[in-house]
Amino acid sequence: MSLKIYDWPTGPFPARVRIALAEKGLLEQVQFERINLWKGEHKTAEFKAKLSYSGTVPVLELEDGTIIAEVNAIITFLDNLDDDQSLTGRTPAQKGIILNMTRRAELEVQEVISTYFHNATPGLGPDVEIYQNKEWGLYQLAKGLRGLRHFDELLQKQPYVAGDEFSMADIALVGGMLFAAMIDVEVPSDLTALFAWYKRVQERPSVKQQIDRGFLDGSKL
Amino acid sequence: MSLKIYDWPTGPFPARVRIALAEKGLLEQVQFERINLWKGEHKTAEFKAKLSYSGTVPVLELEDGTIIAEVNAIITFLDNLDDDQSLTGRTPAQKGIILNMTRRAELEVQEVISTYFHNATPGLGPDVEIYQNKEWGLYQLAKGLRGLRHFDELLQKQPYVAGDEFSMADIALVGGMLFAAMIDVEVPSDLTALFAWYKRVQERPSVKQQIDRGFLDGSKL
Repeated sequence: MSLKIYDWPTGPFPARVRIALAEKGLLEQVQFERINLWKGEHKTAEFKAKLSYSGTVPVLELEDGTIIAEVNAIITFLDNLDDDQSLTGRTPAQKGIILNMTRRAELEVQEVISTYFHNATPGLGPDVEIYQNKEWGLYQLAKGLRGLRHFDELLQKQPYVAGDEFSMADIALVGGMLFAAMIDVEVPSDLTALFAWYKRVQERPSVKQQIDRGFLDGSKL
Repeated sequence: MSLKIYDWPTGPFPARVRIALAEKGLLEQVQFERINLWKGEHKTAEFKAKLSYSGTVPVLELEDGTIIAEVNAIITFLDNLDDDQSLTGRTPAQKGIILNMTRRAELEVQEVISTYFHNATPGLGPDVEIYQNKEWGLYQLAKGLRGLRHFDELLQKQPYVAGDEFSMADIALVGGMLFAAMIDVEVPSDLTALFAWYKRVQERPSVKQQIDRGFLDGSKL
């Protein structure tokens, strides 16, 4: 099987799929094609028509031309290629809980930090950020900081975001932590359970290599 | 098996889970508990601590006390209770495509219409809408109308949102259409493929009964 992924190698959303690929042992089977976010290549009419109407990366293309966009959709595809749904859950309840917590990590951390970046900072620059709403962006940042505190409280009680095992939900929260670091959003130092979890997940090569990649060449994004 | 669902019977997000319950033949096994959105019962500290940190309905509680919030997480749980994943997909590629298109229907239609409602209209009233950003809300409405046009174009080429079969992605777009109708967002009449799809999915009792319910007593929401 050969897979093609359109992404930007240090982007915090692409990072999540790259972590999943490493977890599933599939990195070697992927051909990556760079979509330059800083040039807005993900917002062109051609990109939207062929790969992602929403104008986002990463996007997966299968050998038969099938297109799958959206991080969790791609991870769910990858996780179902073998007989062990280690990332998305084995039982119906696990599947539900993992999707629930994945969505929570997105809604309360990564997506709001992304909205802050694109609305209340220069973001990807004036050619890409054609509409900004600074007040909304700042409001979302405050929500994101509350979200990080919530996950700190949760991780005082359990080792991983969705319970006892590493899952897609941890990958989503890693995406949020990566995005925060890349744009210098400071995570409060008293969130010790959150930092202990972040250190714990970095013991996995899949996570470690992606975090290291994010800071290559001193260029954060 | 008995299931408990906390929701508001005519809410456009709860509607999606009720459609899935009917599709899976599980409606009879559910005990519903009303969370009054107009009184902000989904935003209380107790609700958030016990049921949904994000302050949303619906929320599913299992017999053993397990909590699963978020529409797609609940539908994925329900769809995995039997051996036929008719709503979320049978093959890895189907699962990926359905999640992709479900997310697109949320991102481009239901969620943006919801953001418009909560930010650029009185929404659930001043006690619940503690922060509003009208400019952002209006921008999201415009995005939602573009999204409906996109789905119209898509449905000119295929009978259902994720391809040849009814799925969780159709349920997500039904949620958007329901929300639009409830708050009098007019869907442009030239979107004929979209309307033909909406008529087609209403041939399913699961969808029909939920749309009828939305307008009981003349009270739309």
